[in-house]
Amino acid sequence: MAVKPSIPKGTRDFYATTIAQRNYLKQVLQRNFETFGFEPIETPTFERLETLMGKYGEEGDRLIFRILNSGEKVKKADLNALEKNDLRAFSDSLSEKALRYDLTVPFARFVAQYQNEIVFPFRRYQIQPVWRADRPQHGRFQEFVQCDADIIGDRSLLQEIEMIQLYNAVFADLKLPAVVVRLNHRKILAGLAEAIGAPERLIEFTIVLDKLDKIGVEGVEKELIDRGFDPKVIERLKPMLELTGTPEQKLDKLDTILGGFEAARTGIDELKYIFQTLQKQGLSAVTLDIDLTLARGLNYYTGMIVEVLPPPEVKMGSIGGGGRYDDLTSAFGLKDKSGIGISFGFDRIFLVLEALNLFPKEILKNTEVLFINTDVAALDWSLQALQQLRRQGIAAEMYPVETKFKKQLNYANQKQIPYVIIFGEEEQKQNVFVLKEMTSGTQTRHSLETDIRPLLNR
Amino acid sequence: MAVKPSIPKGTRDFYATTIAQRNYLKQVLQRNFETFGFEPIETPTFERLETLMGKYGEEGDRLIFRILNSGEKVKKADLNALEKNDLRAFSDSLSEKALRYDLTVPFARFVAQYQNEIVFPFRRYQIQPVWRADRPQHGRFQEFVQCDADIIGDRSLLQEIEMIQLYNAVFADLKLPAVVVRLNHRKILAGLAEAIGAPERLIEFTIVLDKLDKIGVEGVEKELIDRGFDPKVIERLKPMLELTGTPEQKLDKLDTILGGFEAARTGIDELKYIFQTLQKQGLSAVTLDIDLTLARGLNYYTGMIVEVLPPPEVKMGSIGGGGRYDDLTSAFGLKDKSGIGISFGFDRIFLVLEALNLFPKEILKNTEVLFINTDVAALDWSLQALQQLRRQGIAAEMYPVETKFKKQLNYANQKQIPYVIIFGEEEQKQNVFVLKEMTSGTQTRHSLETDIRPLLNR
Repeated sequence: MAVKPSIPKGTRDFYATTIAQRNYLKQVLQRNFETFGFEPIETPTFERLETLMGKYGEEGDRLIFRILNSGEKVKKADLNALEKNDLRAFSDSLSEKALRYDLTVPFARFVAQYQNEIVFPFRRYQIQPVWRADRPQHGRFQEFVQCDADIIGDRSLLQEIEMIQLYNAVFADLKLPAVVVRLNHRKILAGLAEAIGAPERLIEFTIVLDKLDKIGVEGVEKELIDRGFDPKVIERLKPMLELTGTPEQKLDKLDTILGGFEAARTGIDELKYIFQTLQKQGLSAVTLDIDLTLARGLNYYTGMIVEVLPPPEVKMGSIGGGGRYDDLTSAFGLKDKSGIGISFGFDRIFLVLEALNLFPKEILKNTEVLFINTDVAALDWSLQALQQLRRQGIAAEMYPVETKFKKQLNYANQKQIPYVIIFGEEEQKQNVFVLKEMTSGTQTRHSLETDIRPLLNR
Repeated sequence: MAVKPSIPKGTRDFYATTIAQRNYLKQVLQRNFETFGFEPIETPTFERLETLMGKYGEEGDRLIFRILNSGEKVKKADLNALEKNDLRAFSDSLSEKALRYDLTVPFARFVAQYQNEIVFPFRRYQIQPVWRADRPQHGRFQEFVQCDADIIGDRSLLQEIEMIQLYNAVFADLKLPAVVVRLNHRKILAGLAEAIGAPERLIEFTIVLDKLDKIGVEGVEKELIDRGFDPKVIERLKPMLELTGTPEQKLDKLDTILGGFEAARTGIDELKYIFQTLQKQGLSAVTLDIDLTLARGLNYYTGMIVEVLPPPEVKMGSIGGGGRYDDLTSAFGLKDKSGIGISFGFDRIFLVLEALNLFPKEILKNTEVLFINTDVAALDWSLQALQQLRRQGIAAEMYPVETKFKKQLNYANQKQIPYVIIFGEEEQKQNVFVLKEMTSGTQTRHSLETDIRPLLNR
């Protein structure tokens, strides 16, 4: 019985056009990473289960694709666990490996594993697919590409500056307009939590703050009061929720309100330094903003936090983000390696470029010349000319069988091949070939010795 | 407790040099596929289990990596099967998806799935990793790259010719000398089996024939007799095992002996046509040979069979192979699509290029210029100059902190960065910077306005 051909939900097949566009995006990223001195690494598709487990929270652990043990090993299935409905333990007994879930944990494992060979500060980039057993939906796949750049091994703020310049360089290269890079700082948030008298409730506090876009200042105020935060101190918080103006003005205002709290002081000073240096250097493609509601990855970011928003005409979440961390590798036994990492949302940036029609036309590879298969007598010259074009880097093919011209021209049309070469009986008598330009229909005749390449309008 | 950082057996981490070399090989392959009119496709890392199962024989099925079902689904574990020690059925109850095992089956699935959109004859190439639960050993990995090119939808012998020209073009580009392309034909083998009076024992016969290299003519003769083949007809077979001379001479000799058998007749004529056409066209990099013991993929090849051997100075098995098939897609409901496919052994070709030192030096990307971090006063000019170099496509970085020169120069040495730029206190006074060439130690002074790029010996 034939199997119905289909692929698992949440996965994709790619063909020529999409692959060319994805390669273009990948190459722009690679080129910029490399001019910024980043080295590529690649890690295996699957890691040891214990490398991945426990790194992404309970929800993350559940979304990790595990590899079923092979052969006899499945006999070790822990049936007691199954009976007790401990599905986690049952799954653990059946699996020793799992698919890469992100690039951060494999990177941390890599740094710890090769710490004696790596020259620190280590600048690495990595562009590879990852897999998540998420419910597939529009724009969310079980297999998608991540793209990360990290500098690990030093605390210098120059690296924060470099990362924003890297975002700028990539988006400038992609000709993506109006990209906004929003900055925040873990220490400013810590200062804020301190200011409202609840330093130990930082995470809870930022979760509410994060809803500002949706529920407005009043909504945030109400929810904080509902959660038992002190109404009087919340009143003092309000001006910070309504920050307006340039990033400099915002930082100045924060300074006035929060400058007295030591943590906030450090955060504000760092952002000021980063902002002023970047302003002096000039950013050609992105604009900076300060956004206190930005609280991504707060469980491990310790300094600057960054998030990148697409042009406003494209309805989409962030297309990149990252931040400074202090303790990425200690889970693998390597302590005190501060670093900074940013990611580019590969699939989302792809969709933005597509929506704004920003993929260059010339990246689309296609056969340029089709040799019509006429008769045996034409074969020697045709095959020679075909090889000659290919050696010159021009994509060319010959229709594989002698059949009606109409069918062969139809093949050229369907494949959007711009040029067709005919060397039929008539042409053979006169020692010429005909070059037909498919869109205009123009036909020109040329002697057999003609170099074909210059005839193509490339 | 910290997890010991390590990766599963049979997998690899890759770093900068190896990645640059692998990308080089990949690009040479891509470039040639594209000039030959092949389009890329990419298929998902995992396929539905039923797409893969039963396509690779029993041994193959066992080596497929399955994905363990997520969450509640593991409750469907077939415990009866486990009890009966039917591990296959037990595994089936725990898994619905599996990792790509080769590129052929996903390609067949793809062609059947998109048959209405594809323009036939369809030329596709695919370069992607595959996974096999094989016992890892030297040079054999559980994750490795395959690279296939196929033309499907037509029987023209021109495609056999194209495929050999494609091998030639790739190995010419890679500057790989002395590559031998061995040809055989399913129908010649069928004729041979007919000649020895056992047409129905073709596969068994070729398995013995395949041992010729190891056990010699006498060994083959003995084993055939042991297996009950008729000694008298085996005597008639002997000259064919000892074929010598040019491919043309070999084909002529086969003609004399086997020409009377219809199947063999077709096979010999086809190889003659292929050989003569290629000879007329000229092959710049590979040489052809005829080898009757070549019997790869005989379960589905129906015409020409091809195998590529590396230069003799490299001890290694075949670095490529393929053949003509008639029925690749019928398992997915699409009948009568003849095609031809060849593969390039990516990892093996990589090892050959490495052994023969054939990777071009210029593919190795590396930071070219390191800006020494001197003091705050140097920062503005240094960052500007750094960005300028990067915009010019030159990989450059700045040491992230102001620290001892020795430490910074040491970083440049360890990372083999050829140039260092110093803009220290002395230089600032005189409005110059110093460019130090690291291998020679030569230092030159330049005004701050100097365009740095031309100073680099690139």
